[in-house]
Amino acid sequence: MKIEKNESSKWQSKLFVVIFESDTFWGKFFDIILIILISFSVLVVMLESVESFRLENGVLLRDLEWLFTILFTMEYLLRLISVKKNLSYVWSFFGVIDLLAIAPTYLSVLIPGAQFLLVIRVLRLLRVFRILKLVKFISQANMLMQALRASRFKISIFIFSILTLVIVIGSLMYVIEGPEHGFSSIPRGIYWAIVTLTTVGYGDISPQTNIGQVLASIVMIIGFAIIAVPTGILTVELSQVQRQMSSNRTCGSCNNPGHDLDSAFCKYCGEKLE
Amino acid sequence: MKIEKNESSKWQSKLFVVIFESDTFWGKFFDIILIILISFSVLVVMLESVESFRLENGVLLRDLEWLFTILFTMEYLLRLISVKKNLSYVWSFFGVIDLLAIAPTYLSVLIPGAQFLLVIRVLRLLRVFRILKLVKFISQANMLMQALRASRFKISIFIFSILTLVIVIGSLMYVIEGPEHGFSSIPRGIYWAIVTLTTVGYGDISPQTNIGQVLASIVMIIGFAIIAVPTGILTVELSQVQRQMSSNRTCGSCNNPGHDLDSAFCKYCGEKLE
Amino acid sequence: MKIEKNESSKWQSKLFVVIFESDTFWGKFFDIILIILISFSVLVVMLESVESFRLENGVLLRDLEWLFTILFTMEYLLRLISVKKNLSYVWSFFGVIDLLAIAPTYLSVLIPGAQFLLVIRVLRLLRVFRILKLVKFISQANMLMQALRASRFKISIFIFSILTLVIVIGSLMYVIEGPEHGFSSIPRGIYWAIVTLTTVGYGDISPQTNIGQVLASIVMIIGFAIIAVPTGILTVELSQVQRQMSSNRTCGSCNNPGHDLDSAFCKYCGEKLE
Amino acid sequence: MKIEKNESSKWQSKLFVVIFESDTFWGKFFDIILIILISFSVLVVMLESVESFRLENGVLLRDLEWLFTILFTMEYLLRLISVKKNLSYVWSFFGVIDLLAIAPTYLSVLIPGAQFLLVIRVLRLLRVFRILKLVKFISQANMLMQALRASRFKISIFIFSILTLVIVIGSLMYVIEGPEHGFSSIPRGIYWAIVTLTTVGYGDISPQTNIGQVLASIVMIIGFAIIAVPTGILTVELSQVQRQMSSNRTCGSCNNPGHDLDSAFCKYCGEKLE
Repeated sequence: MKIEKNESSKWQSKLFVVIFESDTFWGKFFDIILIILISFSVLVVMLESVESFRLENGVLLRDLEWLFTILFTMEYLLRLISVKKNLSYVWSFFGVIDLLAIAPTYLSVLIPGAQFLLVIRVLRLLRVFRILKLVKFISQANMLMQALRASRFKISIFIFSILTLVIVIGSLMYVIEGPEHGFSSIPRGIYWAIVTLTTVGYGDISPQTNIGQVLASIVMIIGFAIIAVPTGILTVELSQVQRQMSSNRTCGSCNNPGHDLDSAFCKYCGEKLE
Repeated sequence: MKIEKNESSKWQSKLFVVIFESDTFWGKFFDIILIILISFSVLVVMLESVESFRLENGVLLRDLEWLFTILFTMEYLLRLISVKKNLSYVWSFFGVIDLLAIAPTYLSVLIPGAQFLLVIRVLRLLRVFRILKLVKFISQANMLMQALRASRFKISIFIFSILTLVIVIGSLMYVIEGPEHGFSSIPRGIYWAIVTLTTVGYGDISPQTNIGQVLASIVMIIGFAIIAVPTGILTVELSQVQRQMSSNRTCGSCNNPGHDLDSAFCKYCGEKLE
Repeated sequence: MKIEKNESSKWQSKLFVVIFESDTFWGKFFDIILIILISFSVLVVMLESVESFRLENGVLLRDLEWLFTILFTMEYLLRLISVKKNLSYVWSFFGVIDLLAIAPTYLSVLIPGAQFLLVIRVLRLLRVFRILKLVKFISQANMLMQALRASRFKISIFIFSILTLVIVIGSLMYVIEGPEHGFSSIPRGIYWAIVTLTTVGYGDISPQTNIGQVLASIVMIIGFAIIAVPTGILTVELSQVQRQMSSNRTCGSCNNPGHDLDSAFCKYCGEKLE
Repeated sequence: MKIEKNESSKWQSKLFVVIFESDTFWGKFFDIILIILISFSVLVVMLESVESFRLENGVLLRDLEWLFTILFTMEYLLRLISVKKNLSYVWSFFGVIDLLAIAPTYLSVLIPGAQFLLVIRVLRLLRVFRILKLVKFISQANMLMQALRASRFKISIFIFSILTLVIVIGSLMYVIEGPEHGFSSIPRGIYWAIVTLTTVGYGDISPQTNIGQVLASIVMIIGFAIIAVPTGILTVELSQVQRQMSSNRTCGSCNNPGHDLDSAFCKYCGEKLE
């Protein structure tokens, strides 16, 4: 009995290597096939949304969609089996994406149109970074991530201030321009303020009165100037992360890199640096 | 008599702690209730501006609005009572906002439509930062503020130059394109120049003649290039503020300055940094 | 005879101090009056361009315009007299602007509509920086100028590359979309390419075919990415200028500031630093 | 026989100096004539695309086009002859451009309209940098190139993430808004998402439903914030390249490195820097 369990465990870990890793030949093979299938299935969903295409090849596309869904469902089950702690996979980022990537097809039996949500499969393509596994790529992506993490407080303050500003401006414009010029409600005014402040400028709603255009001009110049804020924040953080990464001194106790040359103690855990 | 005054003073300072601070349980409780009420009252104003909603629930919304206004008026009076120097509160940033946040309802009795200005209440939400009172948030917001203050001269020069440029371009376009292509006056030409230079580009007015389109192209390329100016200014200031803050961070144990903002331990003596 | 000439020279230099400088009481007084007159005259030109206003107050506006022009002409002549080397003033930046600021009124007798070019008077407002004469302002403006000068080569390369790119893209779109979708000629295609690449996006011309929209998408992403180039260039230069300015070591021989603490010789003229 | 070959080789290398280099008088002369011809021929192609112009001067323009094409064909053949390793030229960047710059005319005999692709000739103008041969220009362009090369990994990750994001957003909008509001298929939704995220904002397709406008608002704010990413990346790299270049600048006299890029003299020994 024990041996059998061991056998199954061996079989399980072999499967794990093939499905979750990509260092072995079969692991790489599996991942590449998967990437191709995902790309192809996203293409099928896109094509189905083009009406002229759907009218001609509708049945074929639906069949392909079911085929992909069944394949991905099997893959999902295999992943569930091969992993030791099932729940940690189910609730991981890719675990959730993998489930969301098959659900819409089954859902589309009940709710027509749901199948277009299958494009969420495109997020599975992010696995491509694992196959590449270029040290360069990983470390560069890490730097970006670290800089974004370091600037999350400042960016939150920025976005919160923008939202407050946009609510005030949107309401002012609603009072100034009124429903007769397209500003039919405060939420619509806020929508216009966002469109203007971010310099998108659709032009589906635009101020007609003189005072409205003066306010709009002020909003535009503010938008043009405050785009500097997130850029400034990220640039400074990125520059700091890069400087720290360029230093190779790593703490032997907590493994954090990036210590200055004159550091005697780790700044993260307080242990002595060798 | 003296004791009575003392009593009242004690009562006053207790009220002050609850209303103005958020370190005690009741202080925090008061602030959280307030934030919820403000959010809810802003939502009510927004909903009232949506016509279909107003036609159905108009009376309810107006009643809610009056309820909120009476509550906030009471809160304003309490603030006035609890604070020692009334005038310093009345003229402070939040004092003015608090008054502006109740005035429109009373005004709307005389001037219909004035109640939409109630959204100014959203500015009261900025108090949320006080409740959070996360050291991180405060220090990060301070850094942003300091960088913005340091760059105020350069930004003023930038905006003054932009305004001059925009007046010249707007007049040129008025002369070139004329009223028949939507450039009905110089102010309108200036409005177009701002829309274009800031890369918003509504398209409600756009040049039709060849020479006008050539000038517009030049304006766009200028706008695309000078967006670099505020960004450059802020980035440099922010980087300087960050460097300065790190050089001001001194270890309480060995008195050595120059610790990174993410350091938890002194890099020279290994002691915990506050 | 000699004394008389001396007299006239004294008179001339007194006039110079009042008109060109702003350190004395009368110098400042003259400049402030001038700034007010200029602002007012620009306003008059703007108002004249608004049709409804012109129909009502046309005669008054024209009279005011002539009044300002005569005043500014007198001022121009006074400047010519008071300055020693007349030609160096005539061909200086402000000399040219001052002449351009009075010419259109006289021209408007021959060519109706020319008076709107009077708005160029707004450029005279740049004198306002001289009145302010805040050391802060001047030094900050200098820093901006120096950074822009230092990045002029890189910015030229950037703009030349953009122009080449825009010609190729504009022609491609002309071939792909053709006149039936608004791309009536290659120059119009180039205009569209600039509108798109700079993220202005009027929407007066926009691609209709699938392949055109694919190309447009690529252009937009390129535009979104290359906005980084001028920003990066200016930020780096500005940061260098700021670092150099923060050093107070000035060369005694060529007066250039910004030498490193370990410099023994001036890096601009090669003289020994004290 | 051997001498003859030598003769031809001498003749060949003389031709090479004139055609490919621009240090000699005839080399410079050849290049300047070429730049003028290219500019003129691009102008002819542009003018031909303007209908009113083509109707009047069609024959002249076609004749000029053939003239330029024959001249450039002769030049191409001369280049082929003068270069030693023909194939390395044929497959080089400028070799390909030179061929593409003459092919469309011949192609236009078979496919009318192909001649408009001749604008690719504008890329030949990039040779202008060789004529300028200003050390400043070359070194500055090199710095830009080096910074762009150093950031290519991070920029790739950024663009890949943008593309994934845009596919998901485009599909969501297709499901939310549907064909009745212009979102006729997922690819069209993706096109809209790119137009919005890059803050171009044509307005040819824009969301009409409430939920669609909420999603659009989120997309715009994301777009406004992530424009910081490429800018931050490039700025940091550019700053690093500049610092590296200055640290590589070594004095020929005292061998000390680390001279600023604008230094004319060594700051340590006062000798002239090359």
